[in-house]
Amino acid sequence: MSVTAPQGFRAAGVTAGLKPSGKPDVALVVNDGPFEAAAAVFTSNRCKANPVLWSERAIGDGRLRAVVLNSGGANCYTGPEGFQTTHATAEKVAELGGFGAYDVLVCSTGLIGPLFSRERMLAGVEAATATLSTDGGADAATAIMTTDTVAKQSVHTSPAGWTIGGMAKGAGMLAPALATMLVVVTTDAEVDAAGLDAALRAATRVSFDRLDSDGCQSTNDTVALLASGASGVTPDPVEFTDALTAVCTDLARQLLADAEGADHEIAIEVRGAASEEDAVEVGRSVARSNLFKAAIFGKDPNWGRILAAVGTTGAAFDPADLDVAMNDVWICRKGMAADDPAGVDLEPRAVHIVIDLKSGDATATIWTNDLTHAYVHENSAYST
Amino acid sequence: MSVTAPQGFRAAGVTAGLKPSGKPDVALVVNDGPFEAAAAVFTSNRCKANPVLWSERAIGDGRLRAVVLNSGGANCYTGPEGFQTTHATAEKVAELGGFGAYDVLVCSTGLIGPLFSRERMLAGVEAATATLSTDGGADAATAIMTTDTVAKQSVHTSPAGWTIGGMAKGAGMLAPALATMLVVVTTDAEVDAAGLDAALRAATRVSFDRLDSDGCQSTNDTVALLASGASGVTPDPVEFTDALTAVCTDLARQLLADAEGADHEIAIEVRGAASEEDAVEVGRSVARSNLFKAAIFGKDPNWGRILAAVGTTGAAFDPADLDVAMNDVWICRKGMAADDPAGVDLEPRAVHIVIDLKSGDATATIWTNDLTHAYVHENSAYST
Repeated sequence: MSVTAPQGFRAAGVTAGLKPSGKPDVALVVNDGPFEAAAAVFTSNRCKANPVLWSERAIGDGRLRAVVLNSGGANCYTGPEGFQTTHATAEKVAELGGFGAYDVLVCSTGLIGPLFSRERMLAGVEAATATLSTDGGADAATAIMTTDTVAKQSVHTSPAGWTIGGMAKGAGMLAPALATMLVVVTTDAEVDAAGLDAALRAATRVSFDRLDSDGCQSTNDTVALLASGASGVTPDPVEFTDALTAVCTDLARQLLADAEGADHEIAIEVRGAASEEDAVEVGRSVARSNLFKAAIFGKDPNWGRILAAVGTTGAAFDPADLDVAMNDVWICRKGMAADDPAGVDLEPRAVHIVIDLKSGDATATIWTNDLTHAYVHENSAYST
Repeated sequence: MSVTAPQGFRAAGVTAGLKPSGKPDVALVVNDGPFEAAAAVFTSNRCKANPVLWSERAIGDGRLRAVVLNSGGANCYTGPEGFQTTHATAEKVAELGGFGAYDVLVCSTGLIGPLFSRERMLAGVEAATATLSTDGGADAATAIMTTDTVAKQSVHTSPAGWTIGGMAKGAGMLAPALATMLVVVTTDAEVDAAGLDAALRAATRVSFDRLDSDGCQSTNDTVALLASGASGVTPDPVEFTDALTAVCTDLARQLLADAEGADHEIAIEVRGAASEEDAVEVGRSVARSNLFKAAIFGKDPNWGRILAAVGTTGAAFDPADLDVAMNDVWICRKGMAADDPAGVDLEPRAVHIVIDLKSGDATATIWTNDLTHAYVHENSAYST
């Protein structure tokens, strides 16, 4: 169900022929109202894809009627010709839907550089519009897949009578501030654009922004949130933000679990930090250490590589008073070897690192994957 | 010859039994004067190994009589016991050499965490002292090898009558501000401590600090420069700095060529930057992109991943006016596909990337390696 779980939304997923594989590649989500409030966050990469350049403008007034997404091409670094394809796509969705082009968010994913056929994209929009349905969420979620092995969907229903539904695509190339990740979340709660924006920024800050699969940052990432208000219920803002955070966290974990070529999902929990910023900086530094990530692939509980990564940060800590646990075994205390690393079982897919900075009460968890032969293989052969 | 090429130095390399392999593992370099001026730079990692904690104090007065180095153990995260081993090592070198312990720099390399035998280390110092010789440079260079496949040495002789010699160890794990890299450079030029410090900082800034093999930053890195003054010649400061830079660059390139599991040596030249800092930031960002590095391993001229890495920086540039060349083929102009990437030959080991930011006159080159199966293998199996 995903994006069509809340009332007031229709969706579709069709095959437009953008992908050589012949798999579905165009998705459309339409908000039938009565609200048309929306919010979105985008990649912080300065070299942005054309759909992001378009969508940053489209979201300016906090109103959206539709999101159109394609796989089979990122429309990135394709110049003015590519921007015109994005523009024409929005115009086509708007024309068929009876609203304005700036009410349409455009998202693209796939290879960077080549430009897909505008003609096929526009025909795909026509086909998607023709098949829009209130149970089209799963089709839409499938049509945005690239190297994903499964479609990612999540739904949360409040006892108060409103629902949040979401879909996501992304597998690897995840990084802070978003990366090759497209997410559309819908709700039938009555929330205005300002309320959506505040909730979305709070939710993404502790979910998608704490995924750091390989440190790379995509050019196309978009997380959009649309409210139809069709439930007729105005939610408690705290409950709404919590529910949105739960949906975003669920989708983020699904992305992590499907990361390209990973053997382990690693949660790096930083405790005792002087600030949340310190905790995030430390977690991210460890998550980006290729040496640490290769060690986890090798099932080697190498805490020295963790300390070396902690040492590159500006966070508050005493190097002679750092503790590190791996899957509940405290293999490092006070910056020295402690419990026997042989007791650390790295066979399971889930790995839990705890780093205690002993400098305060703040905490944060960063999620990443290990660095594997399959990662190198998949990312050395992707476009050739 | 390396460190014994200049007059006034003796060196030795012996087997102390710190390495299970039974290969040489303790090196000693002694400055017989008449000068005893020295300078050193260390890792900027805040979680430093014990020998670095010692050596930062020892260099404080700009005087050194000896450098003692061991492979077979980094003496890092080994606590007070490890620091006492470093201290005892310096004391032993000083006692046998007839100078003070703070005249002795100590360097260690190898696994982090375990502590090697202090008894063997001290016996190694005795053996090294007993075999010190004015042609012991090659033995010393061999004794500091870990996963290095070749010893790294470099010599520069000035027509003015002075010489610089250097040795280095390191293979992979190279990063900015130094990383698992030990370098000792000697000279018989008459240069005081302040002159050595200025020259060393200038030379390392454009050589070792521009190597970024895997973005990780070691806990033990040290580059030391000792002057004996034995040539009796006071060099022109500019000529001396240039010569030192040439020796450091030569050693840095040897480190890059021997990086663990690399198939390609990649020079990332950033042109047209508004400042040298911008050029370095852009080069480093590309050098740290696992996606870019995996693409080079796969011989895939994927310029989109280069632009995506450029886009994560704060450097001055217009995303719609970036040019990128790979091995002399301008595959991206104005942020779009240009010459046919099929013309890029990535079979040779050397890869030359040029990124033109078109925002000024500054330039910098960062060196890195590709991300290969062998890298993952070597770094997932190192300690187990």
